[in-house]
Order: sequence, then structure tokens, then C-alpha cells
Amino acid sequence: MENRIKRLVRDVVDFPSEGIVFRDITPILKDQELCSDIIAEFVSRLKGINIDVVAGIESRGFLFGMMLANELKVPFVPIRKEGKLPYKSIKQCYDLEYGQSVIEIHEDAFKKGSNILVHDDLLATGGTVYAASELIGKLGGKIAAYSFLIGLEFLKGEDLLKEFGAKVVLLTKY
Amino acid sequence: MENRIKRLVRDVVDFPSEGIVFRDITPILKDQELCSDIIAEFVSRLKGINIDVVAGIESRGFLFGMMLANELKVPFVPIRKEGKLPYKSIKQCYDLEYGQSVIEIHEDAFKKGSNILVHDDLLATGGTVYAASELIGKLGGKIAAYSFLIGLEFLKGEDLLKEFGAKVVLLTKY
Repeated sequence: MENRIKRLVRDVVDFPSEGIVFRDITPILKDQELCSDIIAEFVSRLKGINIDVVAGIESRGFLFGMMLANELKVPFVPIRKEGKLPYKSIKQCYDLEYGQSVIEIHEDAFKKGSNILVHDDLLATGGTVYAASELIGKLGGKIAAYSFLIGLEFLKGEDLLKEFGAKVVLLTKY
Repeated sequence: MENRIKRLVRDVVDFPSEGIVFRDITPILKDQELCSDIIAEFVSRLKGINIDVVAGIESRGFLFGMMLANELKVPFVPIRKEGKLPYKSIKQCYDLEYGQSVIEIHEDAFKKGSNILVHDDLLATGGTVYAASELIGKLGGKIAAYSFLIGLEFLKGEDLLKEFGAKVVLLTKY
């Protein structure tokens, strides 16, 4: 699986800013068989974990997150950038390399005590996912697990997420 | 299907700006059985149409667009807002009610002559989808069909898309 993903991920140098090597997953989206196998692999690696809801982080986290929710037969909840969710929401600020950002979740996203799988395409420093986990905690949810196609190990995102005590599934590591 | 969708769509008044009634689809995403049936309904209504690629418009078009591509066993291509796609892209400007916006597609999104299903969650004035169709034309693609969960008929988006001569599938109309 790791090799099949790596063969397709496209490295784009200096995107979105100088010095960053961006891991472009769009070639993966063109390989439907691989996409289907990615979902199966996630499901297999999440076996035995109680998941009530999949929360996907805007916007690439919507791609496999929604499919994963469908495969697990559980609701999908979007976590979005500020101002995008139409209904009553709560927000969480977090630091970026330069400046700050805000993500939001609907207040009625899930019932208290729900077990949430947090999904995104890529785990870098983990800042966004950490903020998403805090949002979920504020609504009384528990982090059941995390799933990512790609993890950038040198940025130590997994360490940042340790305090939530949930399994981190990474299909590919750099 | 139309009734099941309408029962869940949440009307949010004055979002994102005064005088607009926003049709919030997030309650649909929480009904996994309906989501699965929505995909089946799209596939059934698209039967007999030759589709090589599904293009989904950022970001709510990613949700059902990716699932639809997987169900049809064809590649998925994202159409995104300006500056989000990492690789070589072409862009299209279009008018909004106030001001302008830009969407982009990767230059290598699909082969010339491909038949493209354009998907988004909602068809309003059709401005964004029209611009997406122009992008697809610039890359030598043909519009095979359009699919939307919701169409706002009073905004006449279907009329705008007529020149592309493709079937428009709307699961729910307002």
C-alpha cells in the first residue's frame, strides 16, 4: 500500500511557499482502484476500534473521510475553516508557522460521548488536527482514532496528538 | 428521494449574507443510509451516459463527487479555488453577485476528449459550474452530465448550462 501511494504522490517544490515540498495527492484520486483499496486498508487498520462518527477536515479530508464514513456506516461531520459552516458553531484558534488560523464545527455535530475518528489527507505538524481534537472534546466527544494517507514524520505530528491517547493510522510515511 | 432530502436540509436564514436562505446539507451527511442511497440514485439517473471522469467542485462537491467517482469506477478530479492546486493549473474567472472569483484545474487533470461529469452539492445561478465547464473545455474535455443534490430553480442555473448540451441531474428542487 505504502509503495502504491508513494509511486503516485507528486512532490511539488516550494508550494505553497518557499522551502516546502508539497505532497500532491491528486494523482491518487485518478486511480480509482487504489482509492477503493485505501478505504479497505483504513477499515482494516481501524478494526476493533469503536467509531460512531467520522469527522473530516476541510477540504481534502472530505475526499476519503466521506467514503470512510460510508464504508463504516456512520455519520460524517465536516470540520471547516472559519465562516463556512452555516449553523451554530464553536471555533478553535491555532497557530500556523506564520500567523493563526481558525476551524469550526457545528454545535449539533454529534451526541455527547460519541467516539470520533478524525480524518485528513496528511499529518504534518498536527496543529490543525490538534485543534480539531479540542473542538471535539468541547462537544463532549472522545477521539477514537486518527487516519491519514500521509504522515510527515520529521514534523512530529504524532507526538503532538499523543495526549488524546488514540491510535494514529498513517498509510504512508515520509 | 426528494422528500427524504428535503426533510433533512436545514434552512439557515441570512447566511452567508442578508437576504439569502442557505440550504445546509450537513444533516444529510449524518444519515449514512441516505448518503448511500443518494449515490445509487445519481448512478441510476446517469445510466447510459458515457462518463470517464468525475470533476468535483471545492469543497462540498468533494463529498459526494468522490463517492460517485468510486461507484462509477472512474478517476476523480478536484476543481478548486485559486491558489489551492499545487501543480500546473489553468484558471477561469467568473462573476459573483458582488465581485469576482477564480477557480482552477490541473493541466493534467484528464486526457483530451474525456467525458466529464461535473458534480457539486447545489446548483444556484450556475456561475461556478459554468466556469468549471469552460475550464474543462479548455483542456479538451466534453461535459457528459451535471449532478447536484439540490437545484434552486428560481436562479435559473439550468438555463445557463444549456449551451453545454448535457443532462442535468437534480435530486431536489426548490
